[in-house]
Amino acid sequence: MIDKVYGGIETGGTKCVCAIGTTPDDLIKTQFATLAPDESIEKAIDFFKSNSRQRPLTAIGIASFGPLDLDRTSATYGYITTTPKHSWSNVNIVQKIRNQLNIPVSVDTDVNGAALGEQVWGAARGLNTFIYLTVGTGIGGGGMVNGGLMHGLLHPEMGHIRIPHDWKMDPYRGCCPFHGDCLEGLASGKAMELRWGQSPEKLPPDHPAWELEVSYLALAVNNFICTISPQRIIIGGGLMKNPGLIAAVRRKAADVLNGYIRTEAIMKDMDCYIVAPALGDLAGVIGALELAKRTNQGIGSSSKA
Amino acid sequence: MIDKVYGGIETGGTKCVCAIGTTPDDLIKTQFATLAPDESIEKAIDFFKSNSRQRPLTAIGIASFGPLDLDRTSATYGYITTTPKHSWSNVNIVQKIRNQLNIPVSVDTDVNGAALGEQVWGAARGLNTFIYLTVGTGIGGGGMVNGGLMHGLLHPEMGHIRIPHDWKMDPYRGCCPFHGDCLEGLASGKAMELRWGQSPEKLPPDHPAWELEVSYLALAVNNFICTISPQRIIIGGGLMKNPGLIAAVRRKAADVLNGYIRTEAIMKDMDCYIVAPALGDLAGVIGALELAKRTNQGIGSSSKA
Repeated sequence: MIDKVYGGIETGGTKCVCAIGTTPDDLIKTQFATLAPDESIEKAIDFFKSNSRQRPLTAIGIASFGPLDLDRTSATYGYITTTPKHSWSNVNIVQKIRNQLNIPVSVDTDVNGAALGEQVWGAARGLNTFIYLTVGTGIGGGGMVNGGLMHGLLHPEMGHIRIPHDWKMDPYRGCCPFHGDCLEGLASGKAMELRWGQSPEKLPPDHPAWELEVSYLALAVNNFICTISPQRIIIGGGLMKNPGLIAAVRRKAADVLNGYIRTEAIMKDMDCYIVAPALGDLAGVIGALELAKRTNQGIGSSSKA
Repeated sequence: MIDKVYGGIETGGTKCVCAIGTTPDDLIKTQFATLAPDESIEKAIDFFKSNSRQRPLTAIGIASFGPLDLDRTSATYGYITTTPKHSWSNVNIVQKIRNQLNIPVSVDTDVNGAALGEQVWGAARGLNTFIYLTVGTGIGGGGMVNGGLMHGLLHPEMGHIRIPHDWKMDPYRGCCPFHGDCLEGLASGKAMELRWGQSPEKLPPDHPAWELEVSYLALAVNNFICTISPQRIIIGGGLMKNPGLIAAVRRKAADVLNGYIRTEAIMKDMDCYIVAPALGDLAGVIGALELAKRTNQGIGSSSKA
C-alpha cells in the first residue's frame, strides 16, 4: 500500500515553508519570504501544483501565525484576525488554498503545528503536556495539555503575557502595537532590533542585550511553568540560534523559580527540560503535514468542545 | 440501588472543610480552622468516623493546598512538599488518612478539586478548558484543559507567576518567601494585610488598596488567558467576596487585553466569562467528593502520563 501524500505550509512572520510528503524523511520542500497574502499564497499553490502531479495530495495542513479563528462553527473559520502583521488581517487563508486545490485544508497556529511535529517526530515524543515556544521576529507559544493541542476559547497567545519590566534597567517602552511592553513587545527579535538599533544577529555575545533577553525569557518560562506545569519546554525560533542563549535561559529560569517547584526535571535535569526543537526549522512545516494527516483521519485539530 | 457515599476534605490555608454524601444536595458538612497537620487530620478523621456509621464511606478525596506530589509512581506520592505554610511541609496527608479509615484516598490540589466540582455541578458545566483561581490568604489556580484536570509535570502553581510591579505606585516588596513579588506575593490576602497593616475585610471600598488589587488580578487574568485560552475563568476565595471586586477585575482585564483576543466571550460577554464559583465556598469540598468518586471508578485524577 502506498502511503498517502500530504502538503504542509508554515506561514511565519518572515518566511513561508512548504512541504509535500509522507514523513520527515520523505519531503520535497521550498521556502520564500512572507510577502503580501495573495502573493505568498500563490507561491505556495504553484509549489503544490507543480510537485504533486506524480503523487496527488490528500489534504493540506497550515501552521500559521495568528491570531486565527479556529472555531469550525464560526463564519470566519480559518481567518487570520487581528495580527499586527501588515495586510494579513482578516485574510481567509484556508478558503484561498482550498479554492485552488480542492482538497481538505486545516489550520492551526504555527506553534501548535510545531508542537504537533515535535510530539510525533521530535523532542516531545511520549509527552502529553508540553509547550513549544518560538522566539523570532515575534514570540508565540502553543503545545499540548492532556494529549490534545491547546485551543480552548481560541488558542494560546503566549507572546502577549505581561512580565516585570524594570524601566531603569531597560527604558525601552516595548514594540507591541496592542500592549507595548508585553513579552513580545520586550523580547522579540523586532523589539531587540528597535531597542538596540541593529538586528540581533549583529549584536556581539558580550552586548548587554543578551543578558536582558535572557532575563525576560526566564520570567516567561517561569510563568508558563507555574501556569501549565509542562513536562518539557521546547524553544525554537530564529533568535534561539544564538549560541549559549538556551543554556543561559535554563540557568536564569532556575534562579527565578528559586527551588519552589521541586521536581527532578527542574532541580536536576534542566538540560532535558528546556530544549531546542529536535526538528529544527522544520518543526512547523512537519507539524502542518501532521495536521493534514489528522484532518484526513478525522481527528479534529481545530474543532471546539 | 443505594448511591455510594463518599467523603471529601478541602484543606485550605485558613480552614478545613469536610463533607460526607453523594451529591451537593445530600451532604453532611463540618469545618474548622486549619491547625497543625496532625491536629487537623485528627479532627477530619473524627468527623468521618462519627458520621459514617449508618452509611459507610466508599472512598475519600482530598483537595489540598500545595505544592503536592501527585505522581503515583513517586515514593512521596500524596505529600505536601515545599509549602510556605508552617509545619505542613513534607506531610503525607494521603497515608495519614488512609491508615485511619482503610479506604481508597486520592488527592489533588484545592483548586483542581474546586475546578472539578464546578465542572460537574457548577459554573463550568459543559466546558473542557477553563481555570479556577482562588484569591484568599494565598493565590492558586488549577482547572481543566481538553477535558482533563491540569497536572503535567506536577500541577499548576498559578499564584507564583511574575507580573509587572510598579515600585513607585507600590513600594511593598511582596510577601512570598520564595519569590518576593510574584502574584501571590503582591495580591494575596496576606500581602494586602502586610502592605496596609490591616486585614483586607477592614479596608474601606474607597481605599487605594482595591485599585491596586484589581490591577494585579487583571494582569494575572491577562496572562492566564494568553497562556491557556480558557473558555471561562472562575475566581473564588475569601478576598473575592468583596463587593464589586470581580466586576472591577472584568473591566480592568478587558483594558489590559486591549482588544487583542477578539472573541465574543471577551469583547462582549465578560460577565459570563469571568465568574464567581456557582458552588461558592463549597466548590473545593464538593470537588474533593468528586475526586473520591473518580478514584472509585478508576478515573485517574492524579496519575501522570
